[in-house]
Amino acid sequence: MPSWVVVGPGDDAAVIEPERGALDVVTTDAQVEGIHFDRRFVPPDAIGHRALAVNLSDLAAMGAQPRAALLSLALPDATLVSDLDGILDGLLALATAQRTALIGGNVTRTTGPLIIDVTAFGSVKRRRILTRAGARPGDDVYVTGMLGDAVVGLQSLREGGAKAGDPVNVCEARYLRPEPRVRAGLVIGRSRAASSCMDLSDGLADAVRQVAEASDVGMALDAAAIPISEPSRAWHARNGSDALSTALSGGDDYELLLTVRPAQRGRFHAARKLCGHVAMTKIGTVTKGRELVVGYGDQSGPLPQGYQHFAGSPEAGPRR
Amino acid sequence: MPSWVVVGPGDDAAVIEPERGALDVVTTDAQVEGIHFDRRFVPPDAIGHRALAVNLSDLAAMGAQPRAALLSLALPDATLVSDLDGILDGLLALATAQRTALIGGNVTRTTGPLIIDVTAFGSVKRRRILTRAGARPGDDVYVTGMLGDAVVGLQSLREGGAKAGDPVNVCEARYLRPEPRVRAGLVIGRSRAASSCMDLSDGLADAVRQVAEASDVGMALDAAAIPISEPSRAWHARNGSDALSTALSGGDDYELLLTVRPAQRGRFHAARKLCGHVAMTKIGTVTKGRELVVGYGDQSGPLPQGYQHFAGSPEAGPRR
Repeated sequence: MPSWVVVGPGDDAAVIEPERGALDVVTTDAQVEGIHFDRRFVPPDAIGHRALAVNLSDLAAMGAQPRAALLSLALPDATLVSDLDGILDGLLALATAQRTALIGGNVTRTTGPLIIDVTAFGSVKRRRILTRAGARPGDDVYVTGMLGDAVVGLQSLREGGAKAGDPVNVCEARYLRPEPRVRAGLVIGRSRAASSCMDLSDGLADAVRQVAEASDVGMALDAAAIPISEPSRAWHARNGSDALSTALSGGDDYELLLTVRPAQRGRFHAARKLCGHVAMTKIGTVTKGRELVVGYGDQSGPLPQGYQHFAGSPEAGPRR
Repeated sequence: MPSWVVVGPGDDAAVIEPERGALDVVTTDAQVEGIHFDRRFVPPDAIGHRALAVNLSDLAAMGAQPRAALLSLALPDATLVSDLDGILDGLLALATAQRTALIGGNVTRTTGPLIIDVTAFGSVKRRRILTRAGARPGDDVYVTGMLGDAVVGLQSLREGGAKAGDPVNVCEARYLRPEPRVRAGLVIGRSRAASSCMDLSDGLADAVRQVAEASDVGMALDAAAIPISEPSRAWHARNGSDALSTALSGGDDYELLLTVRPAQRGRFHAARKLCGHVAMTKIGTVTKGRELVVGYGDQSGPLPQGYQHFAGSPEAGPRR
């Protein structure tokens, strides 16, 4: 345990020293078997990885440095100890990579599906906080990474999984073990170049809608600019389906959406260089009013609806 | 929201200002329908109350001041909106009474039972932290409140509930809406009179075992000293069952077990007076070695096993 963990797992509660001069950032997100993942093709370590990743993605979207996590598990009686070990291994591997201490948790039985609920703690300096509420007309709209890969990976896994050497393996990996954009969030937060930020857990269309609502603005996206990976394009071409539609409405990518004021462009481009291999692509502009449109060459249309989880049903309520 | 909540519900994560000069205390505990509560006789507001109360009880056991909570709900599709409202009402009523801000959360569907998972945040000054690990031979052993009431209340509710005017109503209320010993924990922590502390979520026998293990000591309890309420005694007499055994092994009381060094007795008795109506009863002594015994007049026997949840099965793992 790091030195700032004063009381770790095993007592009534954990005690940690806040980071000096910084604020606490906290978030919780649960993954439910049969709603958020299917154990037929999501191995235990990926369940653990994803449960932490979705929470670290929320911290990243605030510009926060992850520090610690609590794990709350509801396990069916038929859970194999080897599966439980796999879940913990996957979670701890990502925790180690992201320097996040597992400081406690709770395990209970359930008569229903396996539920893994993680609470993640991070820290951020006050002036570096990224919220959804700061976008203004004229700001540029950016996303990190490639959109729609996770949906392609999920579909491919459902159909039995890609063969060795098939580039769709990359998409499967992106679905199973998403890389939360922690470093990108930190660098952007530190640079103070972004006017708003949100993660894409429920897809681009959903995030655009949320940021526009929180900021009281509209957005105009350029369909041609939306970053789509080669494996995703190839997979869609093979299946006769629409890669753009997946990139707009598909979820589980855990990339970041951010807006940048024209005056901060220089600062933003400097920060961007520090994000290593993570692409940042300009996909549109913030507009006045509350309209959300996607331009397709000379034409334009309304932004499609957001993502619905793989069970095909809407979430019962808001997600963080 | 209090002024120290910098970003409240509705963004990717919540941001709070740590309390100056204090440490963060965090805990999580989930309540599962059919394992921890039975909706046939636990009304929605009590589900919400209990979910927060069990977490505030953990904070109390650390000597911490509660500040904030995150709520994570997994709801079956058949959940009535009125039940959801009731759950929130019960949770928010206790949150308000204990000055705890609900700063965010997550709602998801589940195909299984309703699960309510709360993460509670508090603060404590470093010198006031109460852990399980400080008991030493010669220390006095105390508990707050009356033990076994919750089990009596649960049994009574299962059998259809007590009639109006029956004193067992008090026990039912103690099961449905336990009062976490926040003030007692704070006062004891501030007084620095206790050498260890733990809450009794899984019963006295379990807590005695945990504190003894963490502190590497034994304990000798005096059966005659264990505080049992009049309604509990009367109910047990009527049912031909054993009130002492319930007080020792029964769970869900959410009282505190604490140990006090002989040299701190004066300080402890001064602090005790500040705890208002909460009884603190000396029930035994910390001993050398690791033996856990209960004295019954001239005789003594081993400490019985701890509590098992009402479904009659052991928890699948450690609880906080």
